[in-house]
Amino acid sequence: MSGLFITFEGIDGSGKSTQARLLAETLQGEGHDVVLTREPGGSPGAEEIRALVLEGDPERWSAKTEILLFTAARRDHLERVIDPALAEGKVVVCDRFADSTRMYQGLRAEGLREVVDQLHELMIGREPDLTFIIDMDPAKGHGRAKGRGGTEERFEDFGTDLQTRMRAGFLALARQFPDRCVVVDGDRDVASVAAEVAGIARARIG
Amino acid sequence: MSGLFITFEGIDGSGKSTQARLLAETLQGEGHDVVLTREPGGSPGAEEIRALVLEGDPERWSAKTEILLFTAARRDHLERVIDPALAEGKVVVCDRFADSTRMYQGLRAEGLREVVDQLHELMIGREPDLTFIIDMDPAKGHGRAKGRGGTEERFEDFGTDLQTRMRAGFLALARQFPDRCVVVDGDRDVASVAAEVAGIARARIG
Ligand SMILES: Nc1ncnc2c1ncn2[C@@H]1O[C@H](COP(=O)(O)OP(=O)(O)OP(=O)(O)O)[C@@H](O)[C@H]1O
Ligand SMILES: Nc1ncnc2c1ncn2[C@@H]1O[C@H](COP(=O)(O)OP(=O)(O)OP(=O)(O)O)[C@@H](O)[C@H]1O
Ligand SMILES: [Mg+2]
Ligand SMILES: [Mg+2]
Repeated sequence: MSGLFITFEGIDGSGKSTQARLLAETLQGEGHDVVLTREPGGSPGAEEIRALVLEGDPERWSAKTEILLFTAARRDHLERVIDPALAEGKVVVCDRFADSTRMYQGLRAEGLREVVDQLHELMIGREPDLTFIIDMDPAKGHGRAKGRGGTEERFEDFGTDLQTRMRAGFLALARQFPDRCVVVDGDRDVASVAAEVAGIARARIG
Repeated sequence: MSGLFITFEGIDGSGKSTQARLLAETLQGEGHDVVLTREPGGSPGAEEIRALVLEGDPERWSAKTEILLFTAARRDHLERVIDPALAEGKVVVCDRFADSTRMYQGLRAEGLREVVDQLHELMIGREPDLTFIIDMDPAKGHGRAKGRGGTEERFEDFGTDLQTRMRAGFLALARQFPDRCVVVDGDRDVASVAAEVAGIARARIG
């Protein structure tokens, strides 16, 4: 028996963490064995790498070094948390995964998306079974994320222009991986989004 | 004007650090602008990654995660230290570089050498101009390294069997990259090795 690997993706403040948590709670409440996790991080080693990447001067790592560090964290997370849980038949709900690297790092400069994809192919080689792309107007998402606060601000500092490119990028990703990606309108109240998400997840679990 | 990138490789305790330092001093004394550096590490960010990899339980990182972390460190070192120095026409003398990853990580399990090579191609894409492979009997090298002490013991703990495969691996590397690799007999007094090394380096600098 092999489990189901579900990820949440989308622009800043679109509701990924909120919806990942709610889906995990819902499925758990319905008797499934669920592991809720997140990236970057998700395993002790990956959380240390996350801290190394996100702390300090935003310019301290080049785009390529950052991609390598995130991929190292992902590899650890995959081996120590995701793969073992899936092998036990669990549902893994992950707040961000490789698609975030494809967008956040891949859109930072010409040619980087290809590097991200090739590196993923070589060192990770796994896609989720189901990816929710929470879609919404970047300006609204930005307002939400600012309201929430927090200290790791660097990836929320790109401005609306990049967020707009990112939104288009996530929608393109959904077309590139139609079997696993579902675009969900995130500009509704939390419960409405959660209900749609849970319905789709239940259908996949079968 | 572009500089010269010289690396030192070889099994544990063969004299890489000793010879790298002596060559840097000799060339500096002869009027060259020399940067002496080392891997893993060599730049502030790479040294932090080095600490993350080498500290703690030897089992904490899988081979693939470790390869990614070392490659991230190498990318940082290359961008912040090696490439800028070479662009200024300096001689860069580096104690270990990618060949160490090819051997230490690449020989750890079936198929890993290919992963190391593909990752290097994708994310680093640079070979040294000149590589000294200090060759010697692993048992003798091991005795030296033990005598020297130090806290980062994990990579010196492989035993003579792996060191013997490593020695063969370094010699094979010299055949694979004949244009840049020179095998030097390390089982001589320090000054004799240093004299041969300096002679070869001078000839390359021209
Ligand atoms: N549907 C919603 N309507 C209104 N507010 C929401 C909605 N979903 C989430 N929020 C709020 O918006 C903020 C951002 O939500 P959340 O942290 O879940 O988004 P995120 O996509 O994980 O953000 P980030 O990209 O920063 O990780 C939070 O304060 C959250 O409570
Ligand atoms: N030619 C030599 N003859 C005898 N002792 C040597 C010689 N070269 C180095 N040593 C001594 O052997 C020890 C290991 O040398 P060194 O640290 O330079 O080797 P290394 O290849 O850098 O080792 P490691 O693989 O542990 O980094 C040191 O104590 C050094 O002083
Ligand atoms: Mg979040
Ligand atoms: Mg040394």
